[in-house]
Amino acid sequence: MGKVICAGLGPGDPDLMSVKSDRVIRAARRIAYFRKKGRAGQARSIVNGMLRDDVTEYAMEYPVTTELHFESEEYRRLMVDFYADWADRLADLARDDDIVVLCEGDPFFYGSFMHLHTRLQGRAEVDVLPAIPGMVGCWNVLDTPFTWGDDVLTVLMGTLPEAELTDHMRRADALVVMKTGRNLPAVRRALVATGRLQDAWLVEKGTMPAQRVAKLSEVGDADCPYFAIVLVHGQGRRPEAAL
Amino acid sequence: MGKVICAGLGPGDPDLMSVKSDRVIRAARRIAYFRKKGRAGQARSIVNGMLRDDVTEYAMEYPVTTELHFESEEYRRLMVDFYADWADRLADLARDDDIVVLCEGDPFFYGSFMHLHTRLQGRAEVDVLPAIPGMVGCWNVLDTPFTWGDDVLTVLMGTLPEAELTDHMRRADALVVMKTGRNLPAVRRALVATGRLQDAWLVEKGTMPAQRVAKLSEVGDADCPYFAIVLVHGQGRRPEAAL
Repeated sequence: MGKVICAGLGPGDPDLMSVKSDRVIRAARRIAYFRKKGRAGQARSIVNGMLRDDVTEYAMEYPVTTELHFESEEYRRLMVDFYADWADRLADLARDDDIVVLCEGDPFFYGSFMHLHTRLQGRAEVDVLPAIPGMVGCWNVLDTPFTWGDDVLTVLMGTLPEAELTDHMRRADALVVMKTGRNLPAVRRALVATGRLQDAWLVEKGTMPAQRVAKLSEVGDADCPYFAIVLVHGQGRRPEAAL
Repeated sequence: MGKVICAGLGPGDPDLMSVKSDRVIRAARRIAYFRKKGRAGQARSIVNGMLRDDVTEYAMEYPVTTELHFESEEYRRLMVDFYADWADRLADLARDDDIVVLCEGDPFFYGSFMHLHTRLQGRAEVDVLPAIPGMVGCWNVLDTPFTWGDDVLTVLMGTLPEAELTDHMRRADALVVMKTGRNLPAVRRALVATGRLQDAWLVEKGTMPAQRVAKLSEVGDADCPYFAIVLVHGQGRRPEAAL
């Protein structure tokens, strides 16, 4: 009897994954990971050079193309079938031996693994290994304390309506915006409306070799991939926090 | 010429620190860590059994007692002198060889190291190694996805005014409240006012041997240490997030 072990990989630098994830991945006889069709896959790339020679790999390829709108019924149905199918296969695989599922960032923090986690309940033993979230790797790259004192940190998705983005940005001290990409114009307008644009950074592939860091005010609207993260530092809330 | 290396330790389980922090700590000839007078210190306890036999240890003992009010001028002055003194000593130590400063959680996420980081700028080379924040370790312990879809995550300090806690809780999906302790009554009232109390968990020493997990509604006001973390899960915002 094996387990489904979801190993969080952290922000991208293999040196930043946990000792536990590192050990589990190096020992794995079977691994699975999400990827787009025709791509190597970010999760798989992070573990390059770490795997056993005799490892068996299961690429869980997303069935959708960018032509389908995220909110269409066809998209929803394809994704439901995709997750249901892989939950079946992983539960089946775990009957013989452990299967290690690789997940970027921390699996419980906006991770796709949740769709499998939910469906595997009661069907297989599931272990989830936490990891450094992508945003933590990104703010580390900026080499400045991100939150301190009584700062309020708010994490927003760029896919939210602009009015909600603005409302949250007005109230928060430190800010993280994920899922930017084509939503950057709205994110930028909300930052301008709340006086935060000049303090905003864009970090792409933080901690990875292709890492890019830029002041958001100097980034064009068309020059922002979906996985780039916008960061605004907190300034500390209480007087004694400013020791 | 050495460096000041701040090694993030993560939530407490030594197996959850990064491969890089683990390697740096095991190789360190000199380590420093914060602790209360007369205590072993949480950071130092986490690395038990990992250190070289010939390591030299520098305990940075906080100069204050609980009798001093946090907002008093005397408290502020003592802390300023304390951080200034240790910044001097670390800069001095780094002239000969590396000195590794141990920090719980992620150093740039509400970490005390920021007070040294600021003061060391231009005086020593400083490397900060990111780590899994304490809150990530705590939500992992609850074994359920914490944020998904378009959830808004807000991180609050229990030291904030109750009206601000309520205001933020009303708007956020997933919630983390740190610095709870004696602020628990106000945190609880804010959770009740926003209809979140029944979904709130309290996690103390998450991922450590003495870990404790409880429904917040079953915890007494006097039964909550300062470092316990309150967590409320997000429920997913968009329909397709509920795949």
